[in-house]
Amino acid sequence: MLLIEEEAKELLEKYGIITVKGYVCESEEKAIGIAKEIGFPVVMKVHGIVHKSDVGGVILDIRNEEEVKNAFRKLIKIEGAKGVNVQPMISGIELIIGSADNEQFGSYIIFGLGGIFTEILRDISLRLVPISRRDAEDMIREIRGYKILEGYRGIKANVEAIVELLLKVSELVEKEEIVEMDLNPVFANEKGCFVADARILIGKKRIFDFEKREISFFFNPKSVAVIGASRSIGKPGNNIVWNLKKYGFKENIYPVNPNAREIHGFKCYPSIKDVPEDVDVAIIAVPAKIVPEIMKDCADKGVKGVVVVSSGFSEEGEKGAIFEREMLKIAKSSGILIFGPNTTGVMNTETGFITSFAPLRSVKMGNISIVAQTGLFLGVMMESIASNEPGIGFSKLIGMGNKIDVQDHEVLEYLLRDEKTKVVGMYIEGFRNGRAFFQVARNSSKPIVVFKSGRSEYGKKAAMSHTASIGGNDEIFDSLCKQANLIRVFSFDELLNITKALSMQPLPLGDKVAVIHYTGSGCVQSADAVNFSGLKLANLSKMTKERIRDVTPEWHAINNPLDIWPMVEYHGMEKPYEVAIDAMLRDENVDSLVVVLWSSVLWKSYVPDFGELRNFVKPVYFVAEGPREEVYALKMEYETNGFPLYPNAIAAIEVLGKVTNFAMRYDRRRS
Amino acid sequence: MLLIEEEAKELLEKYGIITVKGYVCESEEKAIGIAKEIGFPVVMKVHGIVHKSDVGGVILDIRNEEEVKNAFRKLIKIEGAKGVNVQPMISGIELIIGSADNEQFGSYIIFGLGGIFTEILRDISLRLVPISRRDAEDMIREIRGYKILEGYRGIKANVEAIVELLLKVSELVEKEEIVEMDLNPVFANEKGCFVADARILIGKKRIFDFEKREISFFFNPKSVAVIGASRSIGKPGNNIVWNLKKYGFKENIYPVNPNAREIHGFKCYPSIKDVPEDVDVAIIAVPAKIVPEIMKDCADKGVKGVVVVSSGFSEEGEKGAIFEREMLKIAKSSGILIFGPNTTGVMNTETGFITSFAPLRSVKMGNISIVAQTGLFLGVMMESIASNEPGIGFSKLIGMGNKIDVQDHEVLEYLLRDEKTKVVGMYIEGFRNGRAFFQVARNSSKPIVVFKSGRSEYGKKAAMSHTASIGGNDEIFDSLCKQANLIRVFSFDELLNITKALSMQPLPLGDKVAVIHYTGSGCVQSADAVNFSGLKLANLSKMTKERIRDVTPEWHAINNPLDIWPMVEYHGMEKPYEVAIDAMLRDENVDSLVVVLWSSVLWKSYVPDFGELRNFVKPVYFVAEGPREEVYALKMEYETNGFPLYPNAIAAIEVLGKVTNFAMRYDRRRS
Repeated sequence: MLLIEEEAKELLEKYGIITVKGYVCESEEKAIGIAKEIGFPVVMKVHGIVHKSDVGGVILDIRNEEEVKNAFRKLIKIEGAKGVNVQPMISGIELIIGSADNEQFGSYIIFGLGGIFTEILRDISLRLVPISRRDAEDMIREIRGYKILEGYRGIKANVEAIVELLLKVSELVEKEEIVEMDLNPVFANEKGCFVADARILIGKKRIFDFEKREISFFFNPKSVAVIGASRSIGKPGNNIVWNLKKYGFKENIYPVNPNAREIHGFKCYPSIKDVPEDVDVAIIAVPAKIVPEIMKDCADKGVKGVVVVSSGFSEEGEKGAIFEREMLKIAKSSGILIFGPNTTGVMNTETGFITSFAPLRSVKMGNISIVAQTGLFLGVMMESIASNEPGIGFSKLIGMGNKIDVQDHEVLEYLLRDEKTKVVGMYIEGFRNGRAFFQVARNSSKPIVVFKSGRSEYGKKAAMSHTASIGGNDEIFDSLCKQANLIRVFSFDELLNITKALSMQPLPLGDKVAVIHYTGSGCVQSADAVNFSGLKLANLSKMTKERIRDVTPEWHAINNPLDIWPMVEYHGMEKPYEVAIDAMLRDENVDSLVVVLWSSVLWKSYVPDFGELRNFVKPVYFVAEGPREEVYALKMEYETNGFPLYPNAIAAIEVLGKVTNFAMRYDRRRS
Repeated sequence: MLLIEEEAKELLEKYGIITVKGYVCESEEKAIGIAKEIGFPVVMKVHGIVHKSDVGGVILDIRNEEEVKNAFRKLIKIEGAKGVNVQPMISGIELIIGSADNEQFGSYIIFGLGGIFTEILRDISLRLVPISRRDAEDMIREIRGYKILEGYRGIKANVEAIVELLLKVSELVEKEEIVEMDLNPVFANEKGCFVADARILIGKKRIFDFEKREISFFFNPKSVAVIGASRSIGKPGNNIVWNLKKYGFKENIYPVNPNAREIHGFKCYPSIKDVPEDVDVAIIAVPAKIVPEIMKDCADKGVKGVVVVSSGFSEEGEKGAIFEREMLKIAKSSGILIFGPNTTGVMNTETGFITSFAPLRSVKMGNISIVAQTGLFLGVMMESIASNEPGIGFSKLIGMGNKIDVQDHEVLEYLLRDEKTKVVGMYIEGFRNGRAFFQVARNSSKPIVVFKSGRSEYGKKAAMSHTASIGGNDEIFDSLCKQANLIRVFSFDELLNITKALSMQPLPLGDKVAVIHYTGSGCVQSADAVNFSGLKLANLSKMTKERIRDVTPEWHAINNPLDIWPMVEYHGMEKPYEVAIDAMLRDENVDSLVVVLWSSVLWKSYVPDFGELRNFVKPVYFVAEGPREEVYALKMEYETNGFPLYPNAIAAIEVLGKVTNFAMRYDRRRS
């Protein structure tokens, strides 16, 4: 049901929102009388029509009786006109506030400046309902045109009044059955905010029920069956058993294969129903069309959960989707939980439990957990990560596949409770229940780093044909990240770079960074990177400079970024780095430190006393440049000691920028 | 001299620019008469004052006699008022067109929408004068608010008229001695553009004289002296001689050292003046304070050019700057050219001529030339590049240092003429003569990739203290890149990634790309990357799809990006890649191709017949993911065969995006 202006305004007023009173007039005479009463200039609008602007039904800045007459005659002729509405003309900055109900995320509100700013420049901000005061403040400051609100050519808004208005709108949308709303225009001036026109669509809002089921047994099963286990080396069904053995999974392993006696030393069973003990988790690696049948066996056996690594389901069309629906039906009726299908599944580095069919070289144990909606995650991708980033340690690794049953928010909920997980990294293409994800994510006390693809129309189309998930509106997702303080990244490299820093180093307490570089041009590039990453260059204290002065040739200036080369020329590598790092970390003006090293044929690179560095409890990120193998060795040494090492200063500073932004919002949210 | 409105308009009219005629009135009566004559609404402005808006001296939308009276009384009271100017009120979109004279780049013009758009949102475009028609079109389309010009709420501009206006303004600024100009506001409507107010500052424009001297002898000297050559292994003065020997420089090498007999087998001389033959180039590696004296010796000897690798000059303060001025004075009077100081100097891989004091492992010969304003370029940085990018081959490598004499534009001019150079990469912190650089760069028929730092205030400050060069206005530099079709990058990694592609592969003829990936999620990420890189996904022809169908399981969809995994599962790695690559390259709808490979414990990666691929003369970029060493080996194999290989699809597509943008502008410019 669509509320027209007057009805909409009535509802708004109930929530304490101030609207501009209009007077509906049926005659010129009445319009003139009203206009004189409320005082020129006035606004006149056609009455009884919703989209008034589109039919030329709004006339502004009417200054005298003559103009009222002309306006009335013009407006009353519009088809559907039931009179003419005369309102005072409020001077102020034009705003638009709207709401809508998104299929994946539910209700959200948008904010922007009027007309061109919203319609052409799309300079809007957006948040899911309900919003906090902080969210409202962010929404206002986020738009490019924010400065206009602070005052331009003598007109100025009361920003606090806009915050209040946004909070009231959020409450209204939350409490009422509103599926769409346009407050447009709203006039903001120094006295407050005034809704001049409004359109509200009443209807049933989407409901986002969701479960948070216990999934921890997937990572610590007491027993596992591998259905589709194979004797042929190199086959997926063989690799799974091989991986379980290699990673030292200590609980019972039951390969299921009617044609084999044993695989990798484990006794085989013709069917899961023949397994003598209870089975917690079954890994299913048989062709898609047989999976429903296998699911029935699992139900009979009382299996708690299955990881379906096979592909050929909904990602490949309607035929596969049928198998999916069948298996899900069996799962629902028997209480089995499903990971996948179309996934490499899960890995827990502590217990050595792994469901992947790709042979994996060693994965290091650590405190990072990753959730990824990609088929080959526990395969080529982990091979690449493990060999290129030897210092990164993982706790839980989770490939989500088509996620027909277990959802992102359930996995996230589990990881946020998991004591072994310090940082969560997520790769997401689309959600089945975005609102649930938001609700779990926004209550996180751990950092969550998210790489979301399917952002563009091209990407959404590709995602549809691949995991049948809807990419969703990227603008909403981006706002969600700000609202829930998620760290959004745009590649797997960035995801790893940032999770690594969060895994190894403490959070900074502020945004002031010091940089040590071995070239002048590196200092210039670093200074740019600090600026564009939203950080500030720390002003080094007098004492810091004095301490560094001891190892600096008299003609060389001590700045931040610090060009350490002339110092190294005089004193060798060791001393200048040691003194500068120590002095900077002791400096109260320095919240974090980036140190750029090099190695070469001539120079063996500097290695600090890592224990001492850790005592400062300030983040220190290192960078090393030079020949490939030397740098790799250095990276190994630093990272196994808990200090991340990046390939160049720009990359390190960009990571620090995102981490700092997270940390500063994190602190504020908790305080 | 500042021209006030009426004088400025007169000058504009001389260049065919249409201005809004105003009538200066000394009395209310005259103002009313004029207003009636030209018709309401009118605009009234105070006469005789320059910054009228700032003092409330402009009143718009005056609709009747009463309002004329009130306006007149208000305006005439303003201090300095010499009357009131009455003008017709033009309906249209408000524009601002301005010009200024930059200390590094000279005259430029800016374009933007009026008021808030320019003043608060800074939504402007900018080009150096003179502009071409193409530049004018770009300026207009570049602003975010461009759509407003195409029509919004019934008002629409004549874009062609704006193009004409910009061209006339450019001509005016070029021909007249104008140092600053504001045409504000200009009204654009369907009939044309009308300058409603103007302010022009007449004065002496900056002059940008520059030389383009012959510097080719620096890369092919017939003889070289190393002044400050040292017997101590590891010392800079030793490394220089060692490098010359190692890289097989065939001409005469004369180490100069009064205390040594020979170094690395070359006979030493006490002074350059003792060298029996003519010396083309002297490499100077002695302390800064002795350099002026050495320069005198070089002048006496008739040396053509010197490369000063020592540091301790203007980059370290006034004391060093004195040495610089002294040496430059000697150079100017004796005709010696100087590279540096504070640089590793130059290298020519063809002749093995090298001036660097850093021992360098092998640098591969090729067609890329790099110019870098960084001290350690032919040192740690090349070590890093040569070992990480074994497939990249270089022709000339040039460290610029403090560039007190030989300038960027001279080096660029040389490289653009150099037959061995196909692509130029440049790292720049600041210019001594930015206009000269622009003039040389814009006439290039070779791609130029530029990484410019010192972009932010922080960065500019760091650059000042480091090479004493002024970073300049980044907005102007960015526009310069568009105008001269330079490929702007933001890191050395990006510089290498792009020069590599340009070095190895042909330019694409269009922006339609096909992608092959081995995972569904890689397809999604690639599709996003195509979109955000300004490319389009090619629509594969029916024939292409049919050909690929032969190696595709019947249930798998053939899309672009193509998920090749299901095909590989059925047919192995070789055939699907071969068929898909061939089919796509034959497809007329495909301008370029990105192929993502993987290697793992199980799979040896696909390697094509490179000769066949080259026959298509379409760019093909490869990507390989997987374990570090396997990927490195693959990279070696692909790149030595002329096909660049990147670490992930996003990186490869971003490179292709910038290359394609260059190629498409390049073609248009030539046609």
